[in-house]
Amino acid sequence: MKYVKRAFVFLFVLMVAASTAAADTDALPSWNDGPAKSAIIEFVQTATDKASMKFVPPPERIAVFDNDGTLWASHPIYVQLAFALDRVKALAPQHPEWKDKQPFKAVLEGDLKTVMAGGEHGLLEIVMATHAGMTTDAFSQIVLDWLATAKHPKTGRLYTEMVYQPMLELLAYLRGNGFKTFIVSGGGIEFMRPWTERVYGVPPEQVVGSSIKTKFELQDGKSVLVRLPEINFIDDKAGKPVGINQHIGRRPVAAFGNSDGDIEMLQYTESSKRAHLEMLVLHDDAEREYAYKCDTEVGRLCKGLEVAKENGWVLISMKKDWKTIFPEK
Amino acid sequence: MKYVKRAFVFLFVLMVAASTAAADTDALPSWNDGPAKSAIIEFVQTATDKASMKFVPPPERIAVFDNDGTLWASHPIYVQLAFALDRVKALAPQHPEWKDKQPFKAVLEGDLKTVMAGGEHGLLEIVMATHAGMTTDAFSQIVLDWLATAKHPKTGRLYTEMVYQPMLELLAYLRGNGFKTFIVSGGGIEFMRPWTERVYGVPPEQVVGSSIKTKFELQDGKSVLVRLPEINFIDDKAGKPVGINQHIGRRPVAAFGNSDGDIEMLQYTESSKRAHLEMLVLHDDAEREYAYKCDTEVGRLCKGLEVAKENGWVLISMKKDWKTIFPEK
Repeated sequence: MKYVKRAFVFLFVLMVAASTAAADTDALPSWNDGPAKSAIIEFVQTATDKASMKFVPPPERIAVFDNDGTLWASHPIYVQLAFALDRVKALAPQHPEWKDKQPFKAVLEGDLKTVMAGGEHGLLEIVMATHAGMTTDAFSQIVLDWLATAKHPKTGRLYTEMVYQPMLELLAYLRGNGFKTFIVSGGGIEFMRPWTERVYGVPPEQVVGSSIKTKFELQDGKSVLVRLPEINFIDDKAGKPVGINQHIGRRPVAAFGNSDGDIEMLQYTESSKRAHLEMLVLHDDAEREYAYKCDTEVGRLCKGLEVAKENGWVLISMKKDWKTIFPEK
Repeated sequence: MKYVKRAFVFLFVLMVAASTAAADTDALPSWNDGPAKSAIIEFVQTATDKASMKFVPPPERIAVFDNDGTLWASHPIYVQLAFALDRVKALAPQHPEWKDKQPFKAVLEGDLKTVMAGGEHGLLEIVMATHAGMTTDAFSQIVLDWLATAKHPKTGRLYTEMVYQPMLELLAYLRGNGFKTFIVSGGGIEFMRPWTERVYGVPPEQVVGSSIKTKFELQDGKSVLVRLPEINFIDDKAGKPVGINQHIGRRPVAAFGNSDGDIEMLQYTESSKRAHLEMLVLHDDAEREYAYKCDTEVGRLCKGLEVAKENGWVLISMKKDWKTIFPEK
């Protein structure tokens, strides 16, 4: 019995030590001290303080994150577009007609300029030819297989190694404080779901995105969903609050984006009756990642900067606020 | 220090006692012993047994429940239809033209037969007139206000008091074993979300249902979503697996329904590679609830009974398997 008692005392000491350590440890080690880090910590401490007027009850602690440019690098082209272009090449042997048919001809010739000149209509053709016509299970596997080997042209890293370390810490910090973290992306919902749990700790049911329609079928006695070449929902701009309401059914209290496509999501969050936080990642680090300017081809944050200023949204400067950009390999 | 040690020993004894009690306690006290209860317990014990070949990893423990007739009574008419009819009456002063216009005229005259004779088109008109044209926040409040006072014509109970006690226990039992419980209903997603957390312990983000479209707007500087009189998605029959994939993004391992509208959901679950469980609630208790027959107006389980037999789905007889139907008031 004596040993049991000793064991408990030891356990007790350990528990006290652990809780003290947790309080002292920096949950955001890749963030430099500054207004961005302070805004996050102040918001979380207030929202979880029962004594505060701004206390947010746990069920309402909903945090939403854009994906491309907010959680992972998506430059020089969207990762999903890189996937689609690679799929066109992989599927080309089954489509001899693509050699003479735009936009596929340009893709096969590596002529990205002509591809992009085809505009939305051309991109839609590429998406439908590469994202539809198989079951959801098969598509999920195709995405995983591609991500296992495809590499970023500049860094030579896997795309899933080009997630932002400071944002991984932020996701974990929020979850550690009772927040449910959701991804709300203009990207394809089924392009993200196969890997978001492993990479971000965000399970499939907490991913919101654009989608194509699916159809239920029995194939050899097995129930499947077949992906159809028809848009179901575009989760961008004013579509983001719509997608949030559709999937989550609650107004978020924290929202993180990086482009004009995120403005409405942040506005929707800002109208919460609870304490709330809105932040935009600024791509201003040409050396370690990219520096976008609003007026360039890749500039995706223009109007958003003005709205941020008016509304007091907090900017995250990759250059100033982040000690490291990508996780260590 | 002596007292601290004693306190720990006491705590230890308490913990052992509690865990023993948990193992001995019946998690499903309102269920009679029988094939239905056994099927549930056997499935849960196997799925959570790490040593079993049929172990289901926690993230994949997704259980889906139909709502009307599976979790709560929805007879003689769907609760949501009762809501819509009451709303027509409440809104009538603002619509003098309804006095002479079907299907509203019939609603105002309490002539349910004529209302139902109007078929889907008539019902859709009633739904759009009562469910659209306000913000999502306002609609949520309208639903809560109605549920706070509206009573079932036969029992005089609030509708939220007509949930099935055995199913509440089943929901809690599954959650206690690491399952995430979702509602997947043909009913309106925004009709359910305001109260499912309180009544079923299912948060809004775990409710899947039919929906109308919404539109993002800034009203007096506040971001809102306005409900539009346009169908977005019908979450019934072959729509249920589509809705499950859209919202959850994983194939469930347990599914519970009560009507032909649930067949595809159970088929989709049955095709899981994991251990799985499919069950149908049989309304066969005329005394304590209702006894539907397939060939009557309200019979909603016809083909489903055949498929259940072929596929070995487990029937839940309200009469034989449930000790009590509704919670004590």
